Amino acid sequence: MASALLALDWGTSSLRAYLLTAGSDDRPQVGETRNAPWGIMSLPSGGYPAALSQLCGDWLEGHPDIPLLASGMVGSAQGWVEAPYVPCPAGAAQLAAGLASVPLHQVPGQASRSLLIVPGVLQAGELPNVMRGEETQVIGAVGLTGGGEERLMVLPGTHSKWVVVRESTIQRFSTFMTGELYAALRAHTILGRLMSAEAKADSSERAFRRGLDVALQGGTGGLPATLFSVRTLGLTRQLNPEELPDYLSGLLIGAELAGALDAFGAGVRARPLILIGDARLCTRYQDALAHAGFGSSRTLAGATEAGLWQIGRAAKLIVAPDPSEPEVAP
Amino acid sequence: MASALLALDWGTSSLRAYLLTAGSDDRPQVGETRNAPWGIMSLPSGGYPAALSQLCGDWLEGHPDIPLLASGMVGSAQGWVEAPYVPCPAGAAQLAAGLASVPLHQVPGQASRSLLIVPGVLQAGELPNVMRGEETQVIGAVGLTGGGEERLMVLPGTHSKWVVVRESTIQRFSTFMTGELYAALRAHTILGRLMSAEAKADSSERAFRRGLDVALQGGTGGLPATLFSVRTLGLTRQLNPEELPDYLSGLLIGAELAGALDAFGAGVRARPLILIGDARLCTRYQDALAHAGFGSSRTLAGATEAGLWQIGRAAKLIVAPDPSEPEVAP
Repeated sequence: MASALLALDWGTSSLRAYLLTAGSDDRPQVGETRNAPWGIMSLPSGGYPAALSQLCGDWLEGHPDIPLLASGMVGSAQGWVEAPYVPCPAGAAQLAAGLASVPLHQVPGQASRSLLIVPGVLQAGELPNVMRGEETQVIGAVGLTGGGEERLMVLPGTHSKWVVVRESTIQRFSTFMTGELYAALRAHTILGRLMSAEAKADSSERAFRRGLDVALQGGTGGLPATLFSVRTLGLTRQLNPEELPDYLSGLLIGAELAGALDAFGAGVRARPLILIGDARLCTRYQDALAHAGFGSSRTLAGATEAGLWQIGRAAKLIVAPDPSEPEVAP
Repeated sequence: MASALLALDWGTSSLRAYLLTAGSDDRPQVGETRNAPWGIMSLPSGGYPAALSQLCGDWLEGHPDIPLLASGMVGSAQGWVEAPYVPCPAGAAQLAAGLASVPLHQVPGQASRSLLIVPGVLQAGELPNVMRGEETQVIGAVGLTGGGEERLMVLPGTHSKWVVVRESTIQRFSTFMTGELYAALRAHTILGRLMSAEAKADSSERAFRRGLDVALQGGTGGLPATLFSVRTLGLTRQLNPEELPDYLSGLLIGAELAGALDAFGAGVRARPLILIGDARLCTRYQDALAHAGFGSSRTLAGATEAGLWQIGRAAKLIVAPDPSEPEVAP
């Protein structure tokens, strides 16, 4: 079947490109995937057009008619062109209606084409929240799992997102700065001083769970106080230098789980969760959720490309193939 | 009256020296004070002996018989000589019994003298706590205010300490990494990006209190979640770039106050507090405590030198002067 969408996951630190064709059940089939370390903060010389033509130039020439659709920080104020946030609640239709467009006249031979960019989502209020990139993963997860009843999706990472989805629409969400806190605390505070980089799997697991338990119990003075125990448990040799990174990780992921209980209510414990993101990190979150007494959770792969496909369909960039049409080589 | 103690407050980033004589009521009188930026992480060439002789060489020569007593990070494992932690509870007597000694043979003309260093305090347990330097301030505050009934002392800073004192003894304490979190978050995370350095007093106060209110209310997801509002309130222009640092400060000091309520119980709200430390920071904490409905608080100056005096007395380094002795020039 002919390729139908050139999909780009274009974040802060990397660019991933997918050549998608229509699969069964309105899901995309990934023909080919390519990666480059050309996030918006690490572009090659020549900037955005050069990154696109160097990673996907042959695709652009070989598929002169397929649309290009990107999500992620490429649509931020610091990106190629800004795709302003659409308000929450938002589903594929709202995201499709908010697509920004950037002409490709700087890409050799592509002067007549444009790249479309998915907007982020803004939840207004006294404590506003924003996402950019995750909206596409969530829409993809809805496409892969069905979107009728209310469900909670968790996207662990630099800025972890907990997203309530109902009727295929993002209803509300929270952000936890877990990953960025971990990196900043480890590299730029006294907590990193006693740490060593290498961990043994066994002690690592034990230290991680110890951190979780501390974060989830009351009477400890909260995160600004429990963090100091990374230092004091090291000083008193209750934890080894190689256990301290995992203990810190446990404290922070535990604070995120406690925060989710605070923000979404204790009932969240009983709800099945869908985890989306880096496989290793999702496994760590699954361990943490189980240890903290949350309900079942499962990890979903392929959400980004599925989301770009769904949003491309909603924007009518992709015409549903005629199922009776025989497959032909391009 | 003759000088009786050369007292040193020797921390991570600075060295302060006091020439003390006996005052009334067993309190010291400060004859002279000197400062240098020679903390243990920023020593002059020649290290500790050079720092001491360059800042206080004439004092050492002019007062060949008075003892030298230091507190702070100079006694840490990274300091001049380690003064191992004494266990909590600890008062002046326990600190005096734990003094470490370093001979001054590398200081010209002082081969026969030593510098004594006050130990830190370790509170053992599942979440251990340590202080080094603050124990001296607390003992000084006890000397300045009387130490009978139980009281709570707050030492705001890089690692804020909340210390319960009873019968002139440190009973228990908590540490909040408030100041270090502020610095790391501002300099090394996305939260600093939208900030400008200069604040107007009016909007600064408003933004600080807004941060306090957010930190003290429930249902927000806790600190890893509320921190993200530094970014989103900036993105949505609900706060100006110059208001964001004060909003972040409010979030973190508010989290410290909420943590103190969690660690010490809601009854802490009714207790009079004694604040010890940098005057500007203490004023900010007094505002925060009043805004958060805590009881009366007052700020105490001169705690470090008073503490070194008290500990010097407990160690019998200083002989009580005969009150009938007439004052004579040295």
